[in-house]
Amino acid sequence: MTPNSEYADRRLRFSAIFKGERIDSFLVTALPNVRYLSGFTGSSGALLVKGDRAILFTDPRYQTQAPQESDCQVKIAKGPLLSEVLNWLLRWKVKRLGFERSRISFESYDLLKRQASEVKLRPVSDAIERLRMVKSPAEAATIRTAVELNSAAMDRALKQFRAEMTEADLVAEIEYSMRQLGADGPSFDTIVASGARTALPHAHPSSAEIKTDQLLLIDMGATVAGYTSDMTRTMGVGRVDQKARRMYEAVLESQLAAIDSVKAGALSSAVDRASRRVLRKHGLDKLFVHSTGHGLGLEIHESPRIGRTGGIPLESGMTITIEPGVYLEGYGGVRIEDTVVVTSNGCEVLTPTKKELIIL
Amino acid sequence: MTPNSEYADRRLRFSAIFKGERIDSFLVTALPNVRYLSGFTGSSGALLVKGDRAILFTDPRYQTQAPQESDCQVKIAKGPLLSEVLNWLLRWKVKRLGFERSRISFESYDLLKRQASEVKLRPVSDAIERLRMVKSPAEAATIRTAVELNSAAMDRALKQFRAEMTEADLVAEIEYSMRQLGADGPSFDTIVASGARTALPHAHPSSAEIKTDQLLLIDMGATVAGYTSDMTRTMGVGRVDQKARRMYEAVLESQLAAIDSVKAGALSSAVDRASRRVLRKHGLDKLFVHSTGHGLGLEIHESPRIGRTGGIPLESGMTITIEPGVYLEGYGGVRIEDTVVVTSNGCEVLTPTKKELIIL
Repeated sequence: MTPNSEYADRRLRFSAIFKGERIDSFLVTALPNVRYLSGFTGSSGALLVKGDRAILFTDPRYQTQAPQESDCQVKIAKGPLLSEVLNWLLRWKVKRLGFERSRISFESYDLLKRQASEVKLRPVSDAIERLRMVKSPAEAATIRTAVELNSAAMDRALKQFRAEMTEADLVAEIEYSMRQLGADGPSFDTIVASGARTALPHAHPSSAEIKTDQLLLIDMGATVAGYTSDMTRTMGVGRVDQKARRMYEAVLESQLAAIDSVKAGALSSAVDRASRRVLRKHGLDKLFVHSTGHGLGLEIHESPRIGRTGGIPLESGMTITIEPGVYLEGYGGVRIEDTVVVTSNGCEVLTPTKKELIIL
Repeated sequence: MTPNSEYADRRLRFSAIFKGERIDSFLVTALPNVRYLSGFTGSSGALLVKGDRAILFTDPRYQTQAPQESDCQVKIAKGPLLSEVLNWLLRWKVKRLGFERSRISFESYDLLKRQASEVKLRPVSDAIERLRMVKSPAEAATIRTAVELNSAAMDRALKQFRAEMTEADLVAEIEYSMRQLGADGPSFDTIVASGARTALPHAHPSSAEIKTDQLLLIDMGATVAGYTSDMTRTMGVGRVDQKARRMYEAVLESQLAAIDSVKAGALSSAVDRASRRVLRKHGLDKLFVHSTGHGLGLEIHESPRIGRTGGIPLESGMTITIEPGVYLEGYGGVRIEDTVVVTSNGCEVLTPTKKELIIL
């Protein structure tokens, strides 16, 4: 989806952040960041950026693939990537090297510190992640495709639904449908939980049969061209009792209120507050044990986090999830989640699946 | 598969490593290591171990699940896990804290260093990974189940094979078959590559049609109860030319020689040498661009690495892959991979799939 020049452009914007700062070069080791700045999709890579120059380091398994995917100079390291990086720090006479504070291992940091003792190491927080928060039109279009495919995959999988199939069976149908529709695969471990297990916000699908007159929660995402999607729906199999219906209506009201509060300039924490306020009104806020949402893109969890704390102003082009939920141990839980893209005066809900309680 | 007492036993064996050393407590942050020592399978966790005491830290999403899975004391952190860990370092009067050198982020290390300035931090390399290398009989049995399921899934998926389906379609059939047979899911991104793309050791499946009179390479693993498996087969669709047959025979001879060299006490590097020697005889060793294999278990890549360097003596109960391959850019590649368990006088090949060239 991204022409090579887009990667060069991203690297220029990235380098510009450090103009005049005490950093002349940057070592990128987190793979999604390497991909974002170089186009390389392999499972082993590092990127050294100095102004408009960049070297992509990878191992011999990728010697054909790396130059096909990336516009950067490619160096194939026979041994550890970092040893090859060290050679180039020397050749480029790097004085002050930025690195990813939260995404480099202590081991790599320690090796750089020992082996490149003449280089000053500068930890930097989330510089690339901040660039990645705001999606280009091409990225947003890919995410829209992923979100729409994801919804289509759920519809397709639910056609195979029959009471007494297991949670794991339904996961199989869901992920098969995603791939049949052209996804790279699931964006995360698909969650299918039924009955009291819906009260586990991150349930593993089990070999439990999905019984009638119970809640069923599906949390799924499909990755397309590297970009993720994320949707949760809670539905009823057969009869849904009044208590569950009340929980559902409260969560839906909370989710709509949160969506309503999204727009460029709004604080992420204000969106979280909007969803929590509705649940408090229903006396359910103590059962809402996670944050309201998160950014997504090349990774399923990206900045910004839509939580109580760490509020940052939303910007047009951010793609975020809105997913309040309530969980009553031993009884069950409800979560409703859409992916939305922030616009100047609101947001567009990308998820086309309806939000009225689905009864299977 | 593991009764709670097995986790307590693992923690005791782990703590025993540091008896008399300059470490009184250990902070575990790598999730597979947390799982190995506590039983907890969630996506957010840390474990603090001091002698026979252990606290599992996780977030509110797991407040029900964590005590169900783990025999450890569970603390639910409202904010960052590490802030809660810091409280307990103080309460336990920790003096010298071991941490995982290669698996903690610089950020976490830096936070500990600043906030727990009275605690001496000791990086430790691969202590838990070394324990994990040798599987218990229960673990080996689970891996055997995963390996056998994986082979059955390939057989089942290949029944759906038809020439001109795409690589991605075949991945869909493979992963669907795994799940239908009861796997948690794939152990890694399933590789299906055809024609010249078989020369990419880590190809992403594409929307390319699988054509007749070409090679087809499938590299797949199924996870069962958290434990991984790994198998590669290269097959022919229709006619296979003499050059490809010669490559296949050479790789098979290389793989059998490597398997033949596996036994408790043999160096991992000697196994790598055994496979490389055969390929050299055939003039193909320069096309073998990766190592011969790797350990597997809770993760798809574990110690020991079966490569040229860093040789360590194999031990009974290690589960490793043997997977030589040769890759000729623009033409194609062949890789053959089994999972084996090391025994006192050799090894048992767990993979039941035959190794004669399969023609579809």
